[in-house]
Amino acid sequence: MHIPKGFTFGAAAASFKKPGKLDLGAVVSGTPAVAAGVFTTNKFKAAPVLQCKEMLADGRKFSGFLVNSGQANACTGDQGRANCRRTLNLAAQALGVPADELLPASTGVIGAQFDMDKWEAALPGLAESLGKVGPEETAKAIMTTDTVHKLASASFALKGGEVRLLGMCKGAGMISPNMATMLSFIACDADIAAEAWQAMLADCVNLTINRVTVDGDMSTNDCVMALANGASGVAVETEEDYVLLRKHLLSVLEELAYLIVMDAEGGTKVAFIEVSGAKSDADAEKVARAVGNSPLVKTALFGSDPNWGRIICAAGYSGADFKAENLVLKIGGVLVFRGGTPEPGDMDDLLGPIMKERDIVIHLDIGDGPGSTMLLASDLTRDYVSINADYRS
Amino acid sequence: MHIPKGFTFGAAAASFKKPGKLDLGAVVSGTPAVAAGVFTTNKFKAAPVLQCKEMLADGRKFSGFLVNSGQANACTGDQGRANCRRTLNLAAQALGVPADELLPASTGVIGAQFDMDKWEAALPGLAESLGKVGPEETAKAIMTTDTVHKLASASFALKGGEVRLLGMCKGAGMISPNMATMLSFIACDADIAAEAWQAMLADCVNLTINRVTVDGDMSTNDCVMALANGASGVAVETEEDYVLLRKHLLSVLEELAYLIVMDAEGGTKVAFIEVSGAKSDADAEKVARAVGNSPLVKTALFGSDPNWGRIICAAGYSGADFKAENLVLKIGGVLVFRGGTPEPGDMDDLLGPIMKERDIVIHLDIGDGPGSTMLLASDLTRDYVSINADYRS
Repeated sequence: MHIPKGFTFGAAAASFKKPGKLDLGAVVSGTPAVAAGVFTTNKFKAAPVLQCKEMLADGRKFSGFLVNSGQANACTGDQGRANCRRTLNLAAQALGVPADELLPASTGVIGAQFDMDKWEAALPGLAESLGKVGPEETAKAIMTTDTVHKLASASFALKGGEVRLLGMCKGAGMISPNMATMLSFIACDADIAAEAWQAMLADCVNLTINRVTVDGDMSTNDCVMALANGASGVAVETEEDYVLLRKHLLSVLEELAYLIVMDAEGGTKVAFIEVSGAKSDADAEKVARAVGNSPLVKTALFGSDPNWGRIICAAGYSGADFKAENLVLKIGGVLVFRGGTPEPGDMDDLLGPIMKERDIVIHLDIGDGPGSTMLLASDLTRDYVSINADYRS
Repeated sequence: MHIPKGFTFGAAAASFKKPGKLDLGAVVSGTPAVAAGVFTTNKFKAAPVLQCKEMLADGRKFSGFLVNSGQANACTGDQGRANCRRTLNLAAQALGVPADELLPASTGVIGAQFDMDKWEAALPGLAESLGKVGPEETAKAIMTTDTVHKLASASFALKGGEVRLLGMCKGAGMISPNMATMLSFIACDADIAAEAWQAMLADCVNLTINRVTVDGDMSTNDCVMALANGASGVAVETEEDYVLLRKHLLSVLEELAYLIVMDAEGGTKVAFIEVSGAKSDADAEKVARAVGNSPLVKTALFGSDPNWGRIICAAGYSGADFKAENLVLKIGGVLVFRGGTPEPGDMDDLLGPIMKERDIVIHLDIGDGPGSTMLLASDLTRDYVSINADYRS
């Protein structure tokens, strides 16, 4: 694990989840950092999302993230906003940072108000832990139905010297970004201009975390936020520096995106749905999302059943503009369907072993247009249903 | 059960499904009947759908339906079309009707070619059964994962005398119409003009069967077809006749639509999702479908969990144009959320008993626009996953 200079981590158990479980976390930078954020486009934005968007709008620097799991503080109205601000003030005091320099994020049940007594009781413990725990503990504190904590990091040389990048996230359910789709925090010790950092984050999120789907549900709390504190003393200046930093940010986010789908609620498979030859990227996206969100495709993946007709069927109702006879389907490299007709051969035999793998590549070529996309999708399992039918009990 | 005059029913076991199960059916009218049809908008239309659209285009009369379950004859290319035509010829010969007067429909696994030997072996039995079995047996022959056969009928007086109307359908999975969504056959003994019959069918399907969703998957084989043979001797002539016939056709289709959702694969609940106050009906539809197709809403329904935040969240990402603060949510008549804030009161207490019912009314008012809609949605259960993960085994 490569830990960016100048960042410390905290974690505490506040009983937002089950007593004794880590559910409150902080990432603090010793020096104020340039901040970037990408947020859910859901009309019902959680209080912390509204708060962050407001705080990030005036372009100042920030000292860290304050994050909790167990309560989403979404659909909580004015009281939710007031509670959010109050937790920021209390936490800033406890952690010894300026009150307006912490960015909040929450995840958990929608619609319940914060239990402020629990917050007040837990914050001294969070402050106490700061610098004594590693990013693993903070990553654990943001888990809800995740079964593993999710971290990715990189260390690499720019012109001016070594730079480190660390990302953590929570995923599991209510996952289908039209941008972010969960909570994700990036810490970096490079010295970079705010606008460039924001543009780089938005660009990389769009190519990674925005290309995953678990259940097609876009959360009220989704956000990806990134701090760059310059503590490495290395400035991002040349074109080459930008390219290198972007490359590593992209790879850290790619790893987090894969981890989200791999650890999808109840999930046992990761489908790489590739679409090419579409009239536009948007059309390719329609096909990929129809296939990746189809409960019938997802249950067939779970059952390792080469029931490829369901993939074709989903493409057919996706709303994308293409000719049925142009669609070519390959699964795991095996040609399955083209020209409106199944390929000869025993597909159950050919596809059987491929469908048993954890990672399955589904390629749909739908014409000779320039549009293409890629989407990571989980399967749909009995455990997904159990987890979500009993989430609050 | 009200059986329209002049119609006879047939059913046989052809081993398309498990041996001994009814999987081949026919509805035959002694006199050629006016025909109407509404078909899937999926780009990949099954061979029987393409065949019916072609046959219905020239406005002639028809003598009946030929239908099988176990094999969808979809994504089967030219060979699938040729097989479809061959089954029509063989069946017409066996049943003693003109070869071009049978309308075909198929349901089952996509992508497999018909086993023509099985067809040839089974058709004498189908002919043998004609008139000896009732509509129950034909309705059983179109079942796939349905647990009950689905029939609805009506008998009512027009100016000229008594008229009868009978509908049957199969549902269960791959259910989300952008029009039809399964196989449905209507028989009526009124004497009505072809154009009026088609318009009435399309209108009524749009208000009933198009307003259900099980899994958001629109099948390659969906169709609703209706025959009116005039055998009652009662002509539909006056405005009042049309209104009465439409009223009863609507109620037969409403009953079939409810049966489809009630018997959804693995389903235990029927949610009546009502949306009002939208800018347009299309916007209301977006909200209803986002809520009705959300795996998180559907698993909460299954768990009888009053996790209303998931309903709000789905409305928020639906893409409908409305203001978050205008949304008012009621569940089973209980006011839950308005003005961006949860209503006071213990919602678990208030909603608990409502969520335990089989039928649950979810009402979302999203503004003061004229747009509204209604959608019937099933829940998402462990059994849905089991049924679809193991469908072909």
